[in-house]
Amino acid sequence: MKLQSYLHRRQELVNRAMDRYLPPVQGEAAGIHRAMRYSVLGEGKRVRPILTLAACEAVGGKASQALHAACALEMIHAYSLVHDDLPAMDDDDVRRGKPSCHKKFGEAMGILTGDALLTYAFELLTRANHGAGVHLRVVREVAHSIGTTGMVGGQVADIRAAGNRKVSPKALESINVRKTGALISAAVRVGALLGGAPPKAYRAMALYGNRIGLVFQLVDDVLDGDGAVRIYGTQTTRQRAQRLTRSALNALAPFGHRAEILRVLAHFILTRDT
Amino acid sequence: MKLQSYLHRRQELVNRAMDRYLPPVQGEAAGIHRAMRYSVLGEGKRVRPILTLAACEAVGGKASQALHAACALEMIHAYSLVHDDLPAMDDDDVRRGKPSCHKKFGEAMGILTGDALLTYAFELLTRANHGAGVHLRVVREVAHSIGTTGMVGGQVADIRAAGNRKVSPKALESINVRKTGALISAAVRVGALLGGAPPKAYRAMALYGNRIGLVFQLVDDVLDGDGAVRIYGTQTTRQRAQRLTRSALNALAPFGHRAEILRVLAHFILTRDT
Repeated sequence: MKLQSYLHRRQELVNRAMDRYLPPVQGEAAGIHRAMRYSVLGEGKRVRPILTLAACEAVGGKASQALHAACALEMIHAYSLVHDDLPAMDDDDVRRGKPSCHKKFGEAMGILTGDALLTYAFELLTRANHGAGVHLRVVREVAHSIGTTGMVGGQVADIRAAGNRKVSPKALESINVRKTGALISAAVRVGALLGGAPPKAYRAMALYGNRIGLVFQLVDDVLDGDGAVRIYGTQTTRQRAQRLTRSALNALAPFGHRAEILRVLAHFILTRDT
Repeated sequence: MKLQSYLHRRQELVNRAMDRYLPPVQGEAAGIHRAMRYSVLGEGKRVRPILTLAACEAVGGKASQALHAACALEMIHAYSLVHDDLPAMDDDDVRRGKPSCHKKFGEAMGILTGDALLTYAFELLTRANHGAGVHLRVVREVAHSIGTTGMVGGQVADIRAAGNRKVSPKALESINVRKTGALISAAVRVGALLGGAPPKAYRAMALYGNRIGLVFQLVDDVLDGDGAVRIYGTQTTRQRAQRLTRSALNALAPFGHRAEILRVLAHFILTRDT
């Protein structure tokens, strides 16, 4: 399979859908809608929505069943970046090659744009075209994964650990699992749920998601020379990422050829260089 | 009916339930859970949850059916206050007689505590003890009411209007409707939904909620000498609040004695002095 071409087509699909779903730059709320679009559209690997769509297909669903949720997860990812970039947090002026949201629109708008993206993502998640029960579970899974035991909790721990060279390997891994892993893993689970996965397939997908979520953060650490690399060194971190990827691939065994794309994506997440 | 005693009992009910629902101050996330509890528990009129419970009862439901949603709405209210108080927004050091969240825990934690409360509120809203369809609709109603055409949109417009003495009466009313009215009105609608209101009763409740949401903000303006008062003056603002209250009471006519508490609450919202 030509990975680059697949990724490009999927990115286009997600970008078009987000453009359609995001509210228009008109009316009373034009200003905040512009800031939301600025923070979501444009550059971005779209790893999370692509995983959602692929997991949905691997369990026998159609990508269209999971498209709204895939886009909601990318909006949640964007919200986390907008708030992370704020002066009181990481204080980043640049994001994806352009001024970060608060640099472009001001700090108050940065806070409110993040809030609006998070809120809108939940609204989008309720757009049910299957049973309400599945969608309610999706909302619960997402809310849980980005809450205090997930993404937000990872952020808090990350801020506390910043500059602390004595943070233990175990604590560091726990930060990584929560800060990045939780949402990536939720992206896979949500795709499986919306594709109609029965319990056993769902559990296998959850295991795959858990593993590649952790791999994603470890590779980030290798690329940034940060986090796990500061404690274990590059080589050990890479080896750990490789072991976790094998575990992810093992979890896909029951799905046969239908999980081929998820295998390629796991390999992509392990070997990416940006 | 002894209003003060009723309000006190309901505040206690809501406070106990929130204490139960909010995650505990222990484990890895103890720090953020402490900040969430700090920002939610303690003082507070609990107007939104009390309205939710009363609307649920008025349409024939039991308060227990709507208790989790009532608490979720109060957490959303708390999230909006925590973010409003941030230095980049209203820059308030004091909230309900104690240091505001960011003064107590630092600015980064203020941002993350608001994020965590909003996220946790959505998780709480999915705790279904009736049909998933109703809960999904509740999530959608809440998300919509606090999004860019509701609460967040009102915040954005409020920031832009700040210090602008030329803001038109119509624009000011629109800010008020969104910033405060949208969540109060959603509180009533959510209670009606969870109480099992049929469509006609739901629409009547929605009308009541819309009117008292606006009254709430107008009375705030009178108490603060701000907003509508700066444009219309105190007397005209009071008269408008009285007219809207009458309209709210008219909407309750079909419910007979079951809506007695909602009538008293409308009167309380109109005549409160804090």
